[in-house]
Amino acid sequence: MNRRNFNIGLMGAAGALALQQGLSAPQLKLRVNGARLNSHLKALSEFGKNPQGGVSRVAYSEADRRGREYVMGLMRAAKLDVSIDAAGNIIGRRAAANNNDALTPILFGSHIDSVPEGGNYDGDVGSLGAIEVAQTLAENNVMLRRPIEVVVFQNEEGGLIGSRAMDGELSEKELDLVSRSGKTIREGIRFIGGDPAKLSTVKRSKGSIAAYLELHIEQGGILEAEKIDIGIVEGIVGINWWDVTIEGFANHAGTTAMNNRQDALLAGAKFIEAVNRVATSVPGRQVGTVGRIQAWPGAPNVIPGKVILSLELRDLDARKIDTLYQKIRGEADQIAQSSKVSFDFKEINVNIPAPTDPRIRAIIGESAKELGLTTKTMPSGAGHDAQDMARLGPVGMIFIPSVAGISHSPREFSRPQDIENGANVLLGAVMRIDQTNLIAKTRLGGLPILTNSL
Amino acid sequence: MNRRNFNIGLMGAAGALALQQGLSAPQLKLRVNGARLNSHLKALSEFGKNPQGGVSRVAYSEADRRGREYVMGLMRAAKLDVSIDAAGNIIGRRAAANNNDALTPILFGSHIDSVPEGGNYDGDVGSLGAIEVAQTLAENNVMLRRPIEVVVFQNEEGGLIGSRAMDGELSEKELDLVSRSGKTIREGIRFIGGDPAKLSTVKRSKGSIAAYLELHIEQGGILEAEKIDIGIVEGIVGINWWDVTIEGFANHAGTTAMNNRQDALLAGAKFIEAVNRVATSVPGRQVGTVGRIQAWPGAPNVIPGKVILSLELRDLDARKIDTLYQKIRGEADQIAQSSKVSFDFKEINVNIPAPTDPRIRAIIGESAKELGLTTKTMPSGAGHDAQDMARLGPVGMIFIPSVAGISHSPREFSRPQDIENGANVLLGAVMRIDQTNLIAKTRLGGLPILTNSL
Repeated sequence: MNRRNFNIGLMGAAGALALQQGLSAPQLKLRVNGARLNSHLKALSEFGKNPQGGVSRVAYSEADRRGREYVMGLMRAAKLDVSIDAAGNIIGRRAAANNNDALTPILFGSHIDSVPEGGNYDGDVGSLGAIEVAQTLAENNVMLRRPIEVVVFQNEEGGLIGSRAMDGELSEKELDLVSRSGKTIREGIRFIGGDPAKLSTVKRSKGSIAAYLELHIEQGGILEAEKIDIGIVEGIVGINWWDVTIEGFANHAGTTAMNNRQDALLAGAKFIEAVNRVATSVPGRQVGTVGRIQAWPGAPNVIPGKVILSLELRDLDARKIDTLYQKIRGEADQIAQSSKVSFDFKEINVNIPAPTDPRIRAIIGESAKELGLTTKTMPSGAGHDAQDMARLGPVGMIFIPSVAGISHSPREFSRPQDIENGANVLLGAVMRIDQTNLIAKTRLGGLPILTNSL
Repeated sequence: MNRRNFNIGLMGAAGALALQQGLSAPQLKLRVNGARLNSHLKALSEFGKNPQGGVSRVAYSEADRRGREYVMGLMRAAKLDVSIDAAGNIIGRRAAANNNDALTPILFGSHIDSVPEGGNYDGDVGSLGAIEVAQTLAENNVMLRRPIEVVVFQNEEGGLIGSRAMDGELSEKELDLVSRSGKTIREGIRFIGGDPAKLSTVKRSKGSIAAYLELHIEQGGILEAEKIDIGIVEGIVGINWWDVTIEGFANHAGTTAMNNRQDALLAGAKFIEAVNRVATSVPGRQVGTVGRIQAWPGAPNVIPGKVILSLELRDLDARKIDTLYQKIRGEADQIAQSSKVSFDFKEINVNIPAPTDPRIRAIIGESAKELGLTTKTMPSGAGHDAQDMARLGPVGMIFIPSVAGISHSPREFSRPQDIENGANVLLGAVMRIDQTNLIAKTRLGGLPILTNSL
């Protein structure tokens, strides 16, 4: 796609009407099968199900592999050509009308791996919603001008591994990091049918996709609190992860006086408090979290000599993340001195903030309006594969409400009707993008065709 | 042994002379083979050796089992009759002169299990020192009036399991607790050759032992700093362990605002700081430690919903431990309220403070004096199997210097000469106690025979 031309096509005032006229009457009436979609979600929840509810389907686990097999079956039923790329991403492709491969594809999808003890909606709604859209198009014989690719990215929760492979950001060194499954990423990719030696074949170039769309649960409580049906994502926050290693000195807890200790865990406790203090010291929506901790040797009667913990900072503004990080480093320096320990910070992952494409935001709004759904433009505090796809082409994200704003938890829940709504908005958006591009192409340098005001 | 009579025998002023006259000239000159003892320590250090130094020979591990086999071999070489009791303790017995089993035995020994990433002296010096004493007696054909039993208690580091079985304190419920090896204590006992169904056969009654002696490294830095050869332990601190469970609410780290979190790890951090603050809030030698922590689900991008950590408090005064604990509970209540989490405290183990026997302290002093060694009377901040044996009869402990006061660490070290000194003091003390009891028995109600002034 020629982005400049596409821009020209979208910047005007009369476009909305033009677009709607571009969709046929049967297309305007097309709806997904909500009951089928929700039953697929229920079936997927069995893979990695926990006794206490929710799911532990961490990437590269046996549950992940079996869940992926189930999803590939659904894709085949939706008449998609299914393949696993060298990075382990699942891709279900449907050819363009008349097998015209000259046009770049529209990608849409999400992921099905979960955090440990996670829920059944994060990633799953977007993955199965995308398949449902493909199946709806197939069974209604709707031909699109562009190829479509439903993508289920691998290991989103462990650092957007699959989507980062697709934009060429996954480094050789990262392949040796150990994932939550216990396997290295390299081993994990092999485990799910990829080939880590051939990652270069996965990389796509900038401009090689027409668009990427992702349906997702909000994972926060705003849409539900404000009784809004659909969130139109304005951008995805940047996320920085570090491993923080604190070295003190392991010693006997009974014979080492309180004033003679180099307690790495006590220093870690002070650090966790400092992260919270710094993250709440300035106004804004930034968040700072320590989610993982391990202390060595880890016995009740030994003063811990070493602690490793995770540090995560998120904000829509990369400079703000850096400012907060520098403040935290300063706090760590002080703790190191007062507690006679040392701190070491190792950068594990950086996801830069990613704005979505204003034209696609408009299309999503158009699609929701057609369905009679209310919308709100909002940021995404969570990271998503869409942020990596933003390096390849224009992206958009559709949020549906999360009940009580709970996510990454067995209590994560989204209502069946909201899931169906989200999939219908995705369906409408895919068809509109397919049309829009065509118009943009045919009206090269011509009149504006889409408003940007929704 | 009749403790009242023994008391009478020890409380006077002329006893020291009487005792020394009781040892024969060859007995007074008897010395252990220090080189052999130190080479045995070196050999034992191979079982569970860590690449970075030190040893991880946690109870019930394969390294523990193999280390125990090595130790049983040494016992047999020392002409001891070796058996494993139903609790898994190793006992090497040597009959009394003339096979006279009417007299209660003198027990001495220690343990060979270690903390994770521990050192090669804690427990090992006392265990192999005891065997060396037995071997010295055997190869010099020194017959004692009482039977002797060299005991290597199992799982000292995991809560004095073996010695608590011997005094009947190990509960059926505790057998199902999971030890550091991953095995339950019940499984562990079976693994090392015991029979958890027959624990009642292990229990000994009060008065069934003549004495229990334990040679041990100090594990603190006092003896080395003050250049003293031998510590005479006046008592062993009480140790209380709890598991503290903090329940918050696991949620997405990106979408949950800072002011809307129930972060169990942040609450845990505040708790760890509170333990340190309370433990240092009053004068004295009390210590408070959090050595173990785990956070669930334990991912960088999830706010922890649950934390379990250990709490340990030690002091020579049980009432002081209780006062500190109540203060900590009060702090936890405040954190629970301010952080919207709950705290639950589960008592895991209580070792009550145990004073040593003043008559045995005198004998240890006598034995050290004979060898020209300097002594200091001091408390033990560490717990030891001796505290359980104190329920069965009079106990004594002999400390040797720990270089730099480091213990429960790969850098734990005691000098070969100090180890040899400690074993010689133990040898002298065993022979003296053997004699002393005889005198006490023969002078039933008679003249005092030992001073208590050393």
